[in-house]
Amino acid sequence: MAGGALAELAKRRGFFFGANGAYGGTAGFYTFGPQGAALKRNVEEAWRDRFTRKEGNREIEAPTVMPEAVFEASGHLDGFDDMLVECGECGESSRADHLVEDATDFEDAESLSGGAVEDLIHEHDVACPSCGVALAGRDVENFNLMFATDIGPGDAHPGYLRPETAQGIFVEFPRLKEYARGSLPFGITQIGPAYRNEISPRGGLLRLREFTQAELEQFIDPETDEPPLDRVADVDVRLYPADEQAAADGEYRDTTVGEAVADGTIGSAWVGYYLGVAREWYERVGVDMDRFRFRQHLAGERAHYAADCWDAESEVGGDWIEIAGFAYRGDYDLSKHGEHGDDAFTVFKRYDEPKTVERATVDPDMSVLGPEFGGDAAAVADALETLAGRDPGAFEGETVTVEIGEGDDAETHEVDADVANFAVEETTENGEHITPHVVEPSFGVGRTVQTLLAHAYETDEVDGEERTYLALEPEVAPRDAAVFPLVTNDDRLVELATRVADDLRAAGLSVAYDDSGSIGRRYRRQDEVGTPFCVTVDRDGIEGDGPETVTVRERDSAAQVRVPVGELAAELATLRAGGEFVSLSERYDSVETDVETTTN
Amino acid sequence: MAGGALAELAKRRGFFFGANGAYGGTAGFYTFGPQGAALKRNVEEAWRDRFTRKEGNREIEAPTVMPEAVFEASGHLDGFDDMLVECGECGESSRADHLVEDATDFEDAESLSGGAVEDLIHEHDVACPSCGVALAGRDVENFNLMFATDIGPGDAHPGYLRPETAQGIFVEFPRLKEYARGSLPFGITQIGPAYRNEISPRGGLLRLREFTQAELEQFIDPETDEPPLDRVADVDVRLYPADEQAAADGEYRDTTVGEAVADGTIGSAWVGYYLGVAREWYERVGVDMDRFRFRQHLAGERAHYAADCWDAESEVGGDWIEIAGFAYRGDYDLSKHGEHGDDAFTVFKRYDEPKTVERATVDPDMSVLGPEFGGDAAAVADALETLAGRDPGAFEGETVTVEIGEGDDAETHEVDADVANFAVEETTENGEHITPHVVEPSFGVGRTVQTLLAHAYETDEVDGEERTYLALEPEVAPRDAAVFPLVTNDDRLVELATRVADDLRAAGLSVAYDDSGSIGRRYRRQDEVGTPFCVTVDRDGIEGDGPETVTVRERDSAAQVRVPVGELAAELATLRAGGEFVSLSERYDSVETDVETTTN
Repeated sequence: MAGGALAELAKRRGFFFGANGAYGGTAGFYTFGPQGAALKRNVEEAWRDRFTRKEGNREIEAPTVMPEAVFEASGHLDGFDDMLVECGECGESSRADHLVEDATDFEDAESLSGGAVEDLIHEHDVACPSCGVALAGRDVENFNLMFATDIGPGDAHPGYLRPETAQGIFVEFPRLKEYARGSLPFGITQIGPAYRNEISPRGGLLRLREFTQAELEQFIDPETDEPPLDRVADVDVRLYPADEQAAADGEYRDTTVGEAVADGTIGSAWVGYYLGVAREWYERVGVDMDRFRFRQHLAGERAHYAADCWDAESEVGGDWIEIAGFAYRGDYDLSKHGEHGDDAFTVFKRYDEPKTVERATVDPDMSVLGPEFGGDAAAVADALETLAGRDPGAFEGETVTVEIGEGDDAETHEVDADVANFAVEETTENGEHITPHVVEPSFGVGRTVQTLLAHAYETDEVDGEERTYLALEPEVAPRDAAVFPLVTNDDRLVELATRVADDLRAAGLSVAYDDSGSIGRRYRRQDEVGTPFCVTVDRDGIEGDGPETVTVRERDSAAQVRVPVGELAAELATLRAGGEFVSLSERYDSVETDVETTTN
Repeated sequence: MAGGALAELAKRRGFFFGANGAYGGTAGFYTFGPQGAALKRNVEEAWRDRFTRKEGNREIEAPTVMPEAVFEASGHLDGFDDMLVECGECGESSRADHLVEDATDFEDAESLSGGAVEDLIHEHDVACPSCGVALAGRDVENFNLMFATDIGPGDAHPGYLRPETAQGIFVEFPRLKEYARGSLPFGITQIGPAYRNEISPRGGLLRLREFTQAELEQFIDPETDEPPLDRVADVDVRLYPADEQAAADGEYRDTTVGEAVADGTIGSAWVGYYLGVAREWYERVGVDMDRFRFRQHLAGERAHYAADCWDAESEVGGDWIEIAGFAYRGDYDLSKHGEHGDDAFTVFKRYDEPKTVERATVDPDMSVLGPEFGGDAAAVADALETLAGRDPGAFEGETVTVEIGEGDDAETHEVDADVANFAVEETTENGEHITPHVVEPSFGVGRTVQTLLAHAYETDEVDGEERTYLALEPEVAPRDAAVFPLVTNDDRLVELATRVADDLRAAGLSVAYDDSGSIGRRYRRQDEVGTPFCVTVDRDGIEGDGPETVTVRERDSAAQVRVPVGELAAELATLRAGGEFVSLSERYDSVETDVETTTN
């Protein structure tokens, strides 16, 4: 499949195209046309069905604009940067690390410091890609990739377009845990826009400034919660572990989820579980499994807090692209919001049985300490309390020795043990507050759409003519069916075709109606947008004694059967839900395919 | 229904709540929790079914960030303002017109000039609502309500969060018309976020800074395209026309869509058509038709280009709130983008038969005009061309008189008719380029959700206990069903309940599973979130010889029937699609409702 042909088809047929073309276009922003928006929505619905509904998880919808405090906590305000170099001549901004990678052997210039990149720009005479003037001597700056705005009048309340949907989940954890009645594990999902103000975006749907994510945050108790791994233990996966990537002759490891978790290739059972679920889901929506793999992050790619990370990657136009990430994030996210936010980002974990805990306490008699230690009395009392917690045995003698102050100011005091009023109390504790760990499967919806189109793009020959078609799964295809009157100069056909289209729409199907051009051209048009079934109303179907019939043509095989109108909606609904067209061929009469070339 | 009780329920049960509570909250931003997000999504899906799928329209998805040029054209950059006054003492920003309305008898201060509002602030001693210091003497400024940001590094490319989804449709009209193969009428829809940087937002979901719109742009040829009005002619509507609002004893006009269009109460048949479609749709999703009306815009409310505008309004907490607008916008939007944008915002309208048109032309001999008129020669040539178009008869004599320049500089010249090379050509024209008109139904999704909750909120008594329940339509209720084991100390019940929940999820239903607390409490919990059907697994259902059965309880009546497990998914799917519970009562055994109070 040539990328150019697909991009041309995507634009011509209304899948997607660069936004605001009438105003010269806006780099990094795409609009999904009618076909693309429907395909994208169907992908989202299929994701929702699998990752929310079937898992018993809950979906929320949080705002896309969030206040600065959230991103101070998450680390995005400080760390969500790319390296920027601005041309002194023409003012063009470029990704400094990308320029260096293009000009040198470095493959990961992003991991270098700004100064090191400046040096490389100088050494390798890197020039501005726009005007060709040398960039040596220009500063390499960190450019924060969040879109900034002001909430309300003035600039007192900076806000940002969220760089990931996940923060809208993390920040509401204190409330979300209530809906789960404080009980782990539970999963929260969100599908929606996220933003990344790329310095110089390229690559169609692959690197956009506005894109759609489908994210699941699975909150777990790391000590006790286990995923239902047996459900996916036998799922075949093609893994590309870090050690194989590092090896000169690195190979894929074709294994199962169960084996890979058991032998430690996948470090977390929860990550393994979701790799299995994702593998099955990708196949269901139409990703070609010969062009799919799970690649483990190299140590340098991983965030410091992430114990194990895998990307789902698909092959598109000869390149492997990341279409989802699966990360074990530990307690990083909730701990950060717990530190910065004014609410409890923990859950209360009840012990199986209450625990009896001995706790040493003091209740110093200040009427004695005051006169004796003057201004140091409070410090002495504090020191007694600290000592009681650390070393209760120190209170067994007649006097207790405490140290107050630090370093050169440190002083040692003796206190009568009686004055401390030392005691050991027994308390019963029913549980403890723990910070849940997070396992995060994070999907790029646009990249999935791009993958499905690339993997569905096919050409063959029908009736002696070459054709292009998209072999999209019926579950995700933009339209469920198209309806045509064979000719428009026979009112009976037009009337019945209109009625059939209306009936199918009433049954909840998404239906195109087309009466323009030869029937062959109409089939090609639907083939190009991946409509799985075309329904044609012809004279044979309305003449004679039997019930009215129409022909139903399957996209990939171009095979046709004749189906009674009264049974059509139910048959198409079954096909959409995964039914096989061959089952219709067994029950209904076949139609010769040369009807395709009949002209209007 | 008390607004406070509903807001409390909405927060406690996970419908919606102010966002970022852990960071002190962010005014104007709400998060939809699991129940609210599901309800909202179901409302969107019901809208899509009716306004996109069933109408044969097409939905697109455009970016939320758009470049400045778009809003220069649309008028939002200049005109999308509110009146702002900032307190000199505490710095609090307020809506100046709202303060004046609160302090005076003015009901529509927004229509006054900034100076007039400043005067009223002075006259009426209006004070800052935050600190109480007088605002007299402070400037009233226009504050643009778009959230501004910068696209890419630097500030060379200002962008804005779209104030309405509609612009994402208008701006892509040149491409969208291609997908419609240049043929009117066609409709494009979009559902997605829109933004309005309110000065001081209040009122929960009613006035948010980020909200969801569902908009339909119906593109028509105003001369020839008619809506299918007969489909909704008999739909009853309660209208509140402008003249009735103006009258002292103004009354609603209860009529039908067909009559209101025929007698001119509704000015546009297209607007009338969509009022009818909307009326039926609102009833379908659960708006109480006794608390619903269509209110016509007063002349002062309407944009100058809008010929007729109606709002759908619902009564919530004693106030009428706007939940949708229906406007005949003429060619305003496409004309503006046609003027500012670099593409054709027109369609080619083919004549039924080609027209032969006579066109007068001149081809002035500049070798004569040049020496004769010097620097005025080009102006004389232009004047000849203009004259030929306006008055071909002027070329019939030997000389032609033209005037160049304007006002005091005007000069009259005589030119030999031969020098003009006047001719009349016949050309054949197949059609003309016309700018389509736009009819825009625009729905607020959050306000619809708010209305549905308010109209569904009910209290009654079951088994001697008061209960609160949401009588939401099954099509939009957050969950399709809940599944409970009656008790958890019997593994057989837990096993079957788990299996039933999994089976229902596999069938595509959204299912809650709850095994905590008494069965009565579990029913109440589901009643409060509007789950229409609760399925309980009890011992009677698994003991004995027959097939396994469960009880199914209907929310509003609390009536219960016993249904075989094998028939459950199909029965619930039928109920969700609008089936009547009474049909189950006719076919299955009833269960006494005192099972509700059985404790776990």
